[in-house]
Amino acid sequence: MPLSQYLEDFTVGQTFGSGRLEIDANAIKRFAADFDPQPFHLDDTQAGDTLFQGLAASGWHTAALTMRLLVDSAFRPAGGVIGAGVESLQWPAPVRPGDVLEAESEVLEVRPSRSRPEQGMLKLRITTTNQDGKVVQTFIANLVVKRFVP
Amino acid sequence: MPLSQYLEDFTVGQTFGSGRLEIDANAIKRFAADFDPQPFHLDDTQAGDTLFQGLAASGWHTAALTMRLLVDSAFRPAGGVIGAGVESLQWPAPVRPGDVLEAESEVLEVRPSRSRPEQGMLKLRITTTNQDGKVVQTFIANLVVKRFVP
Repeated sequence: MPLSQYLEDFTVGQTFGSGRLEIDANAIKRFAADFDPQPFHLDDTQAGDTLFQGLAASGWHTAALTMRLLVDSAFRPAGGVIGAGVESLQWPAPVRPGDVLEAESEVLEVRPSRSRPEQGMLKLRITTTNQDGKVVQTFIANLVVKRFVP
Repeated sequence: MPLSQYLEDFTVGQTFGSGRLEIDANAIKRFAADFDPQPFHLDDTQAGDTLFQGLAASGWHTAALTMRLLVDSAFRPAGGVIGAGVESLQWPAPVRPGDVLEAESEVLEVRPSRSRPEQGMLKLRITTTNQDGKVVQTFIANLVVKRFVP
């Protein structure tokens, strides 16, 4: 278990891998029943007649699983993974039952706050891929990270 | 129940309201245990010592609930609510146990596809507010919407 990292510990270009999470049809349907009840996320047969041409996970499910991969990874900012916002979230390919997802994070920017000397912003590009290496989600996250105050 | 809407049925400036969803502490903790297991989303006491100063919902939980509000609303594009991507997702205020959320969607852009005559893109601004009218989330969604092909 690595120690917590402060803003000063991050450098542009640094990358963090993740573990892996498998997503099955039941999980896809359960998430959809709660949050995104549409035929292409709920029912194998009906999903065939939609733009997805088969059961696919809600994009918000992929986003939530990616958060889980990130929280469980070696990326451990002091104070937690706290998102101020997200830019350019895209789902270039569908997530299917049986897919195994992993996420890579790359540090794009490290910026101390002008108004709050105890914290700063970290910009990360987070890319989620399936078992074939196909990108299923990308986004840029702006995170609030503590600075090291001795 | 309104009929399905095709790209041609949407106009810039049009707005859609939603129903309301209450979020309680158990739901916040359950979602967090699955997708965002951090102290400020899991444990009332520990949450007090964090940037959130008390239990708060994962931003991805707010996003997922907003999707549910949208899917259940009078916004009913033919073929379903299918996101190609999201821009400028922000969480300006925390979502707390007992909050009652609703979402308003405003059409920002209606654009037929150049390469695919049977569909187009709809740009929506989706704003989620709590029972005090405070904005807890905003984003811009790019949706794939069917055109009317007689």
